[in-house]
Order: sequence, then C-alpha cells, then structure tokens
Amino acid sequence: MARVLVLNGPNLNLLGKRQPEIYGRTTLDEIADGLRTRATAASIELDFRQSNHEGQLVDWIQEARETASAIIINPAAYTHTSVAILDALSAFEGPIVEVHLSNIHKREAFRHHSYVSGVATGVICGLGARGYELALDWVIAHLNPSA
Amino acid sequence: MARVLVLNGPNLNLLGKRQPEIYGRTTLDEIADGLRTRATAASIELDFRQSNHEGQLVDWIQEARETASAIIINPAAYTHTSVAILDALSAFEGPIVEVHLSNIHKREAFRHHSYVSGVATGVICGLGARGYELALDWVIAHLNPSA
Amino acid sequence: MARVLVLNGPNLNLLGKRQPEIYGRTTLDEIADGLRTRATAASIELDFRQSNHEGQLVDWIQEARETASAIIINPAAYTHTSVAILDALSAFEGPIVEVHLSNIHKREAFRHHSYVSGVATGVICGLGARGYELALDWVIAHLNPSA
Amino acid sequence: MARVLVLNGPNLNLLGKRQPEIYGRTTLDEIADGLRTRATAASIELDFRQSNHEGQLVDWIQEARETASAIIINPAAYTHTSVAILDALSAFEGPIVEVHLSNIHKREAFRHHSYVSGVATGVICGLGARGYELALDWVIAHLNPSA
Amino acid sequence: MARVLVLNGPNLNLLGKRQPEIYGRTTLDEIADGLRTRATAASIELDFRQSNHEGQLVDWIQEARETASAIIINPAAYTHTSVAILDALSAFEGPIVEVHLSNIHKREAFRHHSYVSGVATGVICGLGARGYELALDWVIAHLNPSA
Amino acid sequence: MARVLVLNGPNLNLLGKRQPEIYGRTTLDEIADGLRTRATAASIELDFRQSNHEGQLVDWIQEARETASAIIINPAAYTHTSVAILDALSAFEGPIVEVHLSNIHKREAFRHHSYVSGVATGVICGLGARGYELALDWVIAHLNPSA
Amino acid sequence: MARVLVLNGPNLNLLGKRQPEIYGRTTLDEIADGLRTRATAASIELDFRQSNHEGQLVDWIQEARETASAIIINPAAYTHTSVAILDALSAFEGPIVEVHLSNIHKREAFRHHSYVSGVATGVICGLGARGYELALDWVIAHLNPSA
Amino acid sequence: MARVLVLNGPNLNLLGKRQPEIYGRTTLDEIADGLRTRATAASIELDFRQSNHEGQLVDWIQEARETASAIIINPAAYTHTSVAILDALSAFEGPIVEVHLSNIHKREAFRHHSYVSGVATGVICGLGARGYELALDWVIAHLNPSA
Amino acid sequence: MARVLVLNGPNLNLLGKRQPEIYGRTTLDEIADGLRTRATAASIELDFRQSNHEGQLVDWIQEARETASAIIINPAAYTHTSVAILDALSAFEGPIVEVHLSNIHKREAFRHHSYVSGVATGVICGLGARGYELALDWVIAHLNPSA
Amino acid sequence: MARVLVLNGPNLNLLGKRQPEIYGRTTLDEIADGLRTRATAASIELDFRQSNHEGQLVDWIQEARETASAIIINPAAYTHTSVAILDALSAFEGPIVEVHLSNIHKREAFRHHSYVSGVATGVICGLGARGYELALDWVIAHLNPSA
Amino acid sequence: MARVLVLNGPNLNLLGKRQPEIYGRTTLDEIADGLRTRATAASIELDFRQSNHEGQLVDWIQEARETASAIIINPAAYTHTSVAILDALSAFEGPIVEVHLSNIHKREAFRHHSYVSGVATGVICGLGARGYELALDWVIAHLNPSA
Amino acid sequence: MARVLVLNGPNLNLLGKRQPEIYGRTTLDEIADGLRTRATAASIELDFRQSNHEGQLVDWIQEARETASAIIINPAAYTHTSVAILDALSAFEGPIVEVHLSNIHKREAFRHHSYVSGVATGVICGLGARGYELALDWVIAHLNPSA
Repeated sequence: MARVLVLNGPNLNLLGKRQPEIYGRTTLDEIADGLRTRATAASIELDFRQSNHEGQLVDWIQEARETASAIIINPAAYTHTSVAILDALSAFEGPIVEVHLSNIHKREAFRHHSYVSGVATGVICGLGARGYELALDWVIAHLNPSA
Repeated sequence: MARVLVLNGPNLNLLGKRQPEIYGRTTLDEIADGLRTRATAASIELDFRQSNHEGQLVDWIQEARETASAIIINPAAYTHTSVAILDALSAFEGPIVEVHLSNIHKREAFRHHSYVSGVATGVICGLGARGYELALDWVIAHLNPSA
Repeated sequence: MARVLVLNGPNLNLLGKRQPEIYGRTTLDEIADGLRTRATAASIELDFRQSNHEGQLVDWIQEARETASAIIINPAAYTHTSVAILDALSAFEGPIVEVHLSNIHKREAFRHHSYVSGVATGVICGLGARGYELALDWVIAHLNPSA
Repeated sequence: MARVLVLNGPNLNLLGKRQPEIYGRTTLDEIADGLRTRATAASIELDFRQSNHEGQLVDWIQEARETASAIIINPAAYTHTSVAILDALSAFEGPIVEVHLSNIHKREAFRHHSYVSGVATGVICGLGARGYELALDWVIAHLNPSA
Repeated sequence: MARVLVLNGPNLNLLGKRQPEIYGRTTLDEIADGLRTRATAASIELDFRQSNHEGQLVDWIQEARETASAIIINPAAYTHTSVAILDALSAFEGPIVEVHLSNIHKREAFRHHSYVSGVATGVICGLGARGYELALDWVIAHLNPSA
Repeated sequence: MARVLVLNGPNLNLLGKRQPEIYGRTTLDEIADGLRTRATAASIELDFRQSNHEGQLVDWIQEARETASAIIINPAAYTHTSVAILDALSAFEGPIVEVHLSNIHKREAFRHHSYVSGVATGVICGLGARGYELALDWVIAHLNPSA
Repeated sequence: MARVLVLNGPNLNLLGKRQPEIYGRTTLDEIADGLRTRATAASIELDFRQSNHEGQLVDWIQEARETASAIIINPAAYTHTSVAILDALSAFEGPIVEVHLSNIHKREAFRHHSYVSGVATGVICGLGARGYELALDWVIAHLNPSA
Repeated sequence: MARVLVLNGPNLNLLGKRQPEIYGRTTLDEIADGLRTRATAASIELDFRQSNHEGQLVDWIQEARETASAIIINPAAYTHTSVAILDALSAFEGPIVEVHLSNIHKREAFRHHSYVSGVATGVICGLGARGYELALDWVIAHLNPSA
Repeated sequence: MARVLVLNGPNLNLLGKRQPEIYGRTTLDEIADGLRTRATAASIELDFRQSNHEGQLVDWIQEARETASAIIINPAAYTHTSVAILDALSAFEGPIVEVHLSNIHKREAFRHHSYVSGVATGVICGLGARGYELALDWVIAHLNPSA
Repeated sequence: MARVLVLNGPNLNLLGKRQPEIYGRTTLDEIADGLRTRATAASIELDFRQSNHEGQLVDWIQEARETASAIIINPAAYTHTSVAILDALSAFEGPIVEVHLSNIHKREAFRHHSYVSGVATGVICGLGARGYELALDWVIAHLNPSA
Repeated sequence: MARVLVLNGPNLNLLGKRQPEIYGRTTLDEIADGLRTRATAASIELDFRQSNHEGQLVDWIQEARETASAIIINPAAYTHTSVAILDALSAFEGPIVEVHLSNIHKREAFRHHSYVSGVATGVICGLGARGYELALDWVIAHLNPSA
Repeated sequence: MARVLVLNGPNLNLLGKRQPEIYGRTTLDEIADGLRTRATAASIELDFRQSNHEGQLVDWIQEARETASAIIINPAAYTHTSVAILDALSAFEGPIVEVHLSNIHKREAFRHHSYVSGVATGVICGLGARGYELALDWVIAHLNPSA
C-alpha cells in the first residue's frame, strides 16, 4: 500500500489561528483530515507532519526514502532559505509536489524565490487549502496511472 | 451556466509534436477534450483557445470580462515578457489560474519570472497536462463552493 | 492641413470601464471627442486609434511617416517591453509626445522604465485624460510656432 | 484668490545664457513673464522663485503649505539626489507638477531616476519652456474644474 | 529541392528608406532579389518574408517545420524581447542562422542581448546586406556538404 | 501582571566569554539580572531565554502569543537569514523591539540587512548591553502609557 | 558641565503638523522640552536645533567638536544622501546616537541605507519621540558610567 | 593529548547511499574509520559527528572551545546559508579546515559562496573523501610543527 | 591678468585639525598660502574659498563664468553626491581640475565614484596638499602654453 | 596587392586535437590552407598567425597598421578579457571581422560578452571553420566592391 | 614513470621575500625542494615552474597534454582574470589541483572568484606551503589508487 | 642617486601616431625626453620603458624593488584587467603614481575602474603628457622633502 508523506514547515501549526483574513480559517488539522479522507478513498496511507525545525524536516525527508512513495511539502519560510531541505529532497527518488497556501509571487520579493522548486516535480501555489488536495489528487493519479 | 475560458499562448499548438521527451505526447486537442469532459460533468461551459499573437490573447481576455466566470491560462513564452497580458488580466474580476506544463523554475533563469503570477489567483506548474485538470477542478469547486 | 496621429496601446479600449477608482470614468471615445474638438479649432486633422497588437501599432507608426506631422502615443503596456515600437518611432521625423494617464513612477518598478521615452520628444504622465489635451496643445503650438 | 508656487532648482538661473544649443535662448525671466500673463488671465496669483540651495527649496515648499494651492517644480539637479525635497513635497496637500525642460530619459543614466516623481501628481518633460505653461494650464483647470 | 525560409522582423520593410546614413540605401526587396539569384544558382528554393507582428513570425517559423530545410532570420527588434520566437525556433530541427545588418554590440546596451542567439546555430552581424548572402552561402554548403 | 519575553539567538550564550574586546565582558546572565531588577521595579514579569536553534526560537515566539505582552529579541545570526522567525513574529500582536549589542551597520555587508526589522516595532543597535535596558524601558512605558 | 547637542534634519520642524497618523501629534518643541527636563535632572546642558540645510548641519557638527560631549542626531532625509554629514560626524570624537522616529526599514527601499550609521556609535529607530529620550538616557549613562 | 573535532552537516549521513555516481560509494562511517586510524597513528583523539540540525552544529562548535584543538568541518548545505555557524566558528581559537567532497565551484551558483570560508583557516574541496584525510594531515602537522 | 578660482567643499576647513594621521598637519590656510605664492610668481590672481554648503559652491562656480579662467576644485563629500555641482561646472567654459588629498579609490566603495570627474578636464588624487600645487602648475602652463 | 591578416588567439593551436566532438576535427593548419587557396584566387595575400600571448597579438595588430588592409581575428579566450586587444584594434583603420568557431552565446555566461565586438566591423560566430571563409569572402568583396 | 607538472603564476617568484608577515618566509625554491623529495619517494617525476606571463603558462599547460599525468597549479593573480588558462586546462585530460597559499575568500572581493575552479578537479587554499604538499599527496594517491 | 622607473602599458608606443585628435601629437619618445631633462635637473636617474606584454610589465616592476626609488606607471589597457600588475606593485615599497593621458572617467564604463588605483599612492588623469611631468615633480619633491 503506497504511502504519501505530507510535510509542513514553520508556523503552519498556527494556521487558522492567526491573520485569518489572509490565511483563512481552516486549521492544519482540518487540512490533514481532508487529505486523510481522500487518501483512504484511494487506498493510500497518509503521514501528515509539521515542524518549526529545519533539521527535523530534513530528518523526516531522509526517512521518507525508505517509507514513502511521494512527498507533498509546504516548506513555508524554509522555502526561501533552506539548501538543506533542497539537498534532502534531491536524494528522494519519488515525485515531490511543493504547495503554498498563498501566491508567493504576490508577496515580498524575498518570497518569490524557492530553493525547493528547483528539485520539486511540480508546484501549486495560491489556491489555499485546496492546493493540498490537488497535490494529493495528482500524486494518487501519478502512482496509479492506469486508475 | 458558468463558463470557463482556457487560453494557451504561443507554440502550444505544437504540443505533442515537438520534443516529446520533454513535453510528452499529449496534444493540445487531447488536453481540450479531457477538460471538456470534466466541464460537462460539472455543468460548466468550456471555451478552449490558442494563439501565437499577444494582441489576440489580450483581445480574448478582454472579452472574457463579459462572457466568462474564470480564466485558466498557460501564457507560454508571453509569461515572461507580456505586461499587456498582465494588464488585461488585472481588469478581469473572476479567479485566474496560471498553468505551466513544465516546472519553469528548473529551466533557464529568464523563465523563472512570470508577469502573470503577480495578478493570478494561483499557479500550477510542472504537473504536465494534469495541471490543466487540477486547475479546472479548483475553478469548479471555487465557483460551486457548496458543491 | 496638418494631421496628428494619436495612438493608444493595449487595454486602453477598456478605459472608463474598469477600475474607475484608478483610471477615472472618462472613456477613450470621450478623450477622442475632446481632442477632435480641439484639433478642429486649430484646423488640424486628428486620427485617433487603439490596438492591443504590437505589430498593428508598428504598422500605423510606419504609415505615419507619409501621412502625419506629429504623433501622440500612449503605448500602455508596450511602453515597457516594445523595442519594435521604439524602432518604428525612431524612423518618424516629426515630433513625438508620449502620454500616460497615471504617473508610472508611482507604480510597480517594471513600469518605471519606458523604451519610448528614449526616442520621444517629450513625456507627459500622471495628468489623466487632460494629459492628451496638453500634448495636443503642445503639438499645435509646435507646428504653428508663430500662431 | 488661488496662488501657485513655481520653484526652480540649481543652475536654472543660467537658462538662456549657457549652452543655448541645448537649452534654447529663453531665459528664466522670460518663462516667469509668460506664466504671469497666463496666471493673470486666469485670476491666479503666481509666485516664481529659483535657488541653488536645497535647504532653501525645502523652506519654500514648507511655506507653501499655508500659502499656495499648487506647486509647479523643476528641481533640476536635485531631482536625482534630494530626499529632503521629496519629504517636503509629501507634506504638501495640493497638486504638484514636476517639469523638466529637456527629456531626462535621453540623458545620462543617473538622470533617469527622479525622487520627486514618486510624490508628484504628474510629470512633464522634454517640451522646453512650453512645459511650464502646460503645467500651469493643468493646474488652473484642476483648481477650477468647472471653468 | 531544398527550401530556405528567410524571415525579417519589424521595421525591416523600411530598409533603404529611413536613415540611409546608418542602414545604407539597399532595400529589402533588393536583398531578396540578391538571395533569390544565389539560391537559384544552387538549385535552392527561397522564401523571403517580413512582418511587424511577433505572432506572425511565430506562425511562419512553425510552418517551416514542414516546409523548410533551414531558416535565416533577422528578428530586428524582437531579437531582444521575444521568448515566443525563441521557443518557435527551438522546435525547428534544421540549421538556423541569425543575421543583423548592423553590429548590435556597438549600439544601446539593451540591444546587446539576443534571445535568438541561444537557439541559433550561428550568428552574423555588422556585415550589412552581405550578411544575408554569407548566411545563405553557409546554408547551401551545409545542406550540400559534398558540393 | 504584564509579561515580557526576552529572546536571544545563537552564540549569545558565549557573551562575555569570547572576544571581550568586541563584545565587552558582560555575560548574558548579567544582562538578564539587570533586566529582572528593572522589570520587578515596574511590576513586570520577565522571561529571559537563549537558544542556538532557529526552530526553538520559533516555538518560543509562537507560545508568546498567549503568554507575553511584548517581545524583546536579539536574533543574532538569525537576524540575517531567518524568514521563519520573521513569520513567527508577524503573528505576534504586541510590540517587538529588536536589539543588537554591536552596530551591525559597521560590520560585514551581509549583516546590514535584517529580516526582523521589517516586522519589529523598533530597533536599537550598537549601544551594548544597555540597549536591552533601553528596550525594556520603552516596553514598560509603552505598556503603561499613563505611568 | 557636560553638553549634549541634539540635531534635527530637514522637515522635522513640521513634526506634529503633517501626517499625524504617521508621525504622531508630538511637535519638535515638545520633544525638546521633554529632553531638557531630563537633561536638567542629570545636570547636563542640552542644545536642541533643527535645520533644512545640509551645510548648516555640517557647520553645527563641526562646532560641536569644541562645545559638546555627545551628539544625538536625527538626520531625516539627509540620512540617506549626505556624505558631508558623515564626514563631519567622523571628525567628532564623542559618542553619536542616530535616532529615527519611524522604523526606516519598513519604508521605501531607498530609506533602508543610512550613511550616518556607518559612523554612529548606535542607532535607535521606530520608537517614536521616546527614541530621543532613550538616546539621551544612554548618553547620560555613558558620560557618567559610575552614576 | 590533542583532540580534533570533525563535524558533518545535513544529509551527509546519506553518503554512499544516494547518488553514488556523484558522491561515490564511500559511507560517512568509512570516512570516520579512515580518519580514526590516521589519528591514532599520530596520537590524536578524533571526535567525528554528523547532524542535520544547524543549532546542534552550533552547540558542538561552542563545546569545542573547551575540548578540541582543531575543527574540520564539512558544513554541507549550511555552508551557504548559516551565519550562526560562522559566528560560532569565529569564537573558536584553534585552526579550522573547511572540507567539501565535491568541487562546489562546479555546481549551482548558490553553492559558490561559503559563509564558513570567511572564518576558516583553509579550504579543501573537490578531492572526495580524501579531502578529509588531507585536512587531518594538515591539522596533525600544524599541531606538531616539529614532528 | 588671469584669475584661478580654487574651491573647497565641506569639512575641508577642519584640515590639519582632525585625524592628522590621515590628512596630515597642513591646514587649509597653509595650502592657500602656498598656492598664492605660486600664483603671484606666475602673475596669476588666486581666489581661494571653502564652504560646507552645496548651494554656495554652486553660486561660486556660476560667478566664475564671468570672473575666472580656470577652476581647481576639491569637492570633498559633494564629489559623490552632487549633481548640482556637476551641472554648474558643465556651464563653465575654462579648464577644471578636480583634486583630492587622499586616494579616494582606497577608501569606502561609495567614494570611488565622482560625479565631478565626468566634467573635469583632469583629476589628481592621493598626492596630499601637493596635489593642489600640481593642479595649479598645470593650469598656469595651460593658460600660458608658450611660457 | 592587398594583404589580410588572420589572427588566432590562445589554445586555437590545439584545434582538431582536443574535444573533437565540440570543435570538430579540422585543424588550424587546414583552416589556413583553405583560406590561402581562397585568397590566391582573389589575388589577396594572406598572413595567418596564432599565439597564446596577449602581448604578441597586440604587437601583430600594431604592425598590421602598416602592412595589412583588413584583419580577421578569432581572439578566443582574450575575447572576454582583453582591453589591450580592443585598444590595438581601435587604432587599426581597415575593416575587422571577429570570428568564433562555436556560438559563444550558447556557452557559459562569461563568454557572452566580447570586448572586441565593440570595435569590430562585424562578427560571425557558431558557423565553424566555415566562419573564417565567410569572413574572408566578405573582406575580399569589401576590398573590391566593384568586383 | 608518472610526471606531475607544478605551475606557479605571477609574483610567486617573490615568495618569502615580500610581506613575510602575510605569506611566510618559505621561498618558492624551498617549496619546490619539498615537493621533489616527496615525489622521489613516490617514484614520481616532478616539473616545477613559475612565470609572470599568462601566455607562457598557457604554453606549458598545452605541453603537459603530452608530457604530464597531472597538474598542480597556483595561478596567483591569473586565477581571477584568465579565461585563456581555463581553456588550456580544459584541454588537459588528467586531474588538476588548484592551490592557493592564502585563503582567497578572506581577501578582496575580486579574489573570491576563480576561473580555474570551474575546471579543476579540486581546490586547496589557505593552508600555506603545506597546501602544495597535500595536493601532491592527493595526486600520488590518485595516480596509484591501489598504493 | 635616486632612480625612477616610468612604465607604459600596451599601445602607448603608438602615441602621437594614432587618433591625434584624441591623444594629441606628442609621441612617447618626446614624453621620455621631457622627463629625462627634468630628471637630470633634479639629479635623478630616469628609466623609461614600454611593453605590450602584461608579464613583461610584471617582471620590470619586480626588478624595481631592488633598483628604483619610485614608480610612475601608465598601465593603459591593463589598468582595468590586470590583477598581476596590482600584485607586483603591492610588493614595491616606494611611492607609486598612476598616470593616464585621458580622463578615464569620461570614457566607456569599463574604463572607470582601475585595479592599480587601489595600490597606487596617487593618481593623475586627463592632463595629457603634462600628467607625467606632474607625477615626476611630485616624486622628486617626495624623495627630497627638504629640497
């Protein structure tokens, strides 16, 4: 049974609790629930995690080499600063989808560049919490091309 | 009945015919067919077009102000050079999803910047022809939030 | 009888119809009417055109070499991207006044540079629809220095 | 009775006396005379000044907050270097028109950027001494919109 | 019988008519005639076209995939701004020679960069109308290596 | 009773122990003691912490949303590299004072830019250990404006 | 008896009179009064001045070499453009504290760089009129380290 | 007995397990073994560690101030992003040798700059696992100059 | 009788009084005396002035158009920031020699660029007070080529 | 009898011997032979040289002022670094054709800029050894316009 | 018997004679002697040379294609300016080790970039004269992997 | 008896022979003669040389360490490209005066930066052949301060 790792970077644990006018009122737990339902329907195991620690995210990505078929990652602030996450992801052989809740190209200039995009298979940004679902849909279809 | 305009920029008419090792073997017609099926199922009208002319794309975006509820656009080469398309899109009031078949962040440096992203609601790139379908799924869900 | 060509670039046909809080409620037709009245009073023929197509604007500028004494041009988005319009204008021997409705220096950084300014006789920006009239006043005075 | 302050920056007192092949033979006094005639006809009081001192220009702009309805300013060299004039102008609540005799976009690269444009209502450049008159025409029309 | 497409970008239709002190007095028709004579002698079919429209040039380049063995292109102003032409050319499988009448490296800084050079086989610039003939000579020799 | 969180970034635990000619001989514990005395006198609770881990600092800032009225932060090296700390701080609603012992503008160019300054209420740098006390004085006055 | 010179650059004489929503309603006179009270209590003489003229500020800084023990300076707009003030300050041997009412790092990019910071002992910004008081407190403590 | 700390940054624990065509098949354990043998022969104690956590590396470098005579460090991805490691190393008084398995100057542009090089005694890159041995040889010779 | 104007910019009045280890112990008066002696010997009138005010320097340069045959100028800090002085000098028709006591190319990066050099006849820097004398020697020889 | 100097820069003596997959198998001697044949047919004397020494190339270019009617030069690596060759060529009064075997615009970024192009009459690149022949053809035609 | 070429660039002949506080007191001859001893022990022939002439270094690198198994090169100043040496080295098929006595990353910014690093197998810098020995050790081990 | 070395870089041997409207009609020999006369009068030995070879200039500068008291150098084109000459000069302990005939700040942008200025004692440019004489006068006075 295929397993998908969904990783969330720093401050995403505050989702739905801060600046709801910007990020909406959906919490990270609600996103996780939505994805799990979708994964179950597709007979996919879903592992959903969050950390504020760059090193922790690197550890998890390394583990995924043995335990996951695909990674969906919202690196949040580390998108723009972490070469370590880029390197960890480049050692992962399955597909990687980078997700951002907001459209990072409409924000400050320093958020326009993503180290992760250089190694991701694809990127979805600006489509809110639905972006995670689209990413999972793509992963499911990708893992089961004939389905 | 809601109507979605799908616009394709220069050279996308060659899709599936050139460099299949890069862009795959799916043609633009096949993408259009897939989207139409999906749109019909959701009772959405789909208008799918392609042009190599920047001015033509601007004309179509302007018309969409009266005739479409949402725009999905793959501006191709004009992504990186057209302020005129940016201006036309900024006068459109519905949601806009920018789609790229390939991950533009893995290509030449001059393809990393998109004028369109600054005005799009969201962006999907690198997920191949499936990216169009995900964009349409998001638009359908967005237009029918309760569905 | 002297003839003045007034050219308008992409999206200016939407004037007065979109974002009136920014661009005001005057339409392009109303601007044309105002200029025609002024031109008639000065016994000047006025040719007022708009196109979303860069190539069309280039064609018109070329024709003006034989048919017009002066050009007033609001290149809109092409201001910032068109070397072709710059080249066409540089082959025109009469005076050229570049007009912008808004003050482009208060907008996004990519709108601060104008290819056209490098070849225009003068530039008027930020003075709204009145900017066209001032440009025409200057052209009339320039063509009839003794008047 | 409305009052318009016309400010001229460094070296403009030499107008008509130096490099006439570039700047023409009109002197600053002649420009002032022309504007005064125009102002009188419109029942506007005109205050026309020149200084080579940045601080003096700042002082005058500050005074204008109480005594003038509009400012027309040709900051000359301070256009490109004075944040102090920018700050003083930003505390002025009436309309501001920036004027340059020559087209600064055709000159050295360091003259292409104007600190003042970021706070001016509009900019006129390259139209010679007539540029001042156009600016005054706009101000008069702006102050008497129904006239 | 091999066929060579010669494409000319915006404003080249004015050749010989404007600024003869810079561009010389040879017209585009005269260049075409010279090339046709040379082509006939080598039993090569020559198709010589000009357009001010970027999209038109893209259309023609796409057609050439089926109808031409080689492309000689003087993209004029689009040299510096068109990613669309670059993309169209990159889908052409035969040799491509980029030609410029003047030495673009001696002109304004924005003319020093060519998008087309990145995909052309070779570049000839600064050798005037003769540059077209040298390009054709090379193409003929390239198509008939043993001749 | 109001509570102020004082956060110290990487290597500040070495204060007073390394390069005393630059950073002085005051240790971080001594700074903490001085601030606690000051806080007690103003009936303010003081929470003083240090970590070398970016993620730990993010965790603490997040907790402060519920437990602190103000944050004083010396992000040390993370000043220049951490978007994650910037994001965490931007979700904190109280005042934030950024403190640096040395004048970062006199040091290497890469230390001149601070991600944190973009979200801090104010910044104090170059005033040594006294800078913390001034920051606390400001916070106390800010929390008790009538005191 | 020690003497502290407090210098204020261009437009600060308008404080409390313009854009109160940004700069607050405290006037420069009120700031001076507050500082004088504080100085008297510490038996320090206070000399508080403002000028819109760069040269005047340079003159005053030079005089301070003989007459003042410390300088507190808010160079306002000259912060970003005056090498002359930087040079004058570098010839002053006592401590120098640079103060800004607003957080200059949150404003336009051209306000992020300060020539003065390179020669100041320390910098306080974004803490409003209280920033002057903190600067004076630091100077007093610095001049009387044992007090 | 002298003690040398060998630190390895993020993802180096995967050495020999990922992309062997690039990084070779030698594992980090094998490198450690080789160095320990060499150290024993020179009567040097060797402490070999790896972490994916920037803060952990900073902690270890700080400890080394008391416990090690020299540091050999391959900061991996943190080479390019960590000012915190730079600061920690600058508080270490012994020699520091920076090692990279691959030649970072042949890789992506963002890998060409190393924060660590600015504080290291020397740098060895591109010589594979042997680079660690050369670094240790240098350290041994440096600690025992007469040996 | 020819007259040479020697202008000195801000802070040069402190010469010999501040940082003698850098600027030497020669005062500006001593430099003036040395030049006057030299001028007298060559039957040249010398006018030696200093001001901290940019506007004052501009005024003096303008006057020189009528009263001086040559200008020797050490613009000090205004070297790097004053377009107004550049403009004033460009209206002076005689030779202009720019002098700097120190070698500005060995100092901070912002001192490497001089606006004045673009309009000066020649530049002498780094040769101390003797640089003024060499400049005067050149001017004398230039004014009396046959002497 | 006209004489043409053909100069070849560093490492071109290795042509045909290194990296034949890139540079082809034609040697520099074979190129020289081909050109000599062509020159003889046109009654032109050909002088073909190569040096790895920048100074040697400068010497030869200087000699050509007296001995050659035209220069064809492939400066190889010195293309991108030699101002000395640029200066020498600018003192040559005849036509100069710059030739590159490969298309330098497709190679590393530092090869995109040529100092020589700024002074050459024209440039041919990317057309292999045939590029030399085309250059010679142009020179012959240029020297004998009526032929 | 394998042969290693050791090349030294400009000014290295002065080693030990100038600025010994920076470069140490070891002369280039002493370095050569140390390497020869080491080479003899490994039955390797050593060829050690120095030149101030870029072209001479290029000549020697070319010869090495036939006569040497490896190159150790300290290009000194040419490190930062010579594309010719880069090109010559890229035609050499054996391993290349770049050596610098000082840590170039601690010096002026223009010394941080090395053209040679882009083609070298590895780089050693900042380890003084010992750096040459480490380079030779690596070469010996590389040539005799089983030794 | 003191000895002064005067070095001239590439193409200066053409002085007076090329572009006399720019460089004047004085030849390098005439400059040498003038300097020799002046040197003899001051009992100084003068050694005047020119080379087009960078390495040759480096050799001569190295020799000067033993044989000359001062260097006057016009590095011509190598001014802008030679780190090798910079390094050689930095090993010379006497004074160094850099001379340029023309004002390099009025020429192409790439001529504005001089590597040599960073190590020269002083610089004289734009004063023609007289610049050499002024440099020698300064050197003579510097070597004989009491004279």
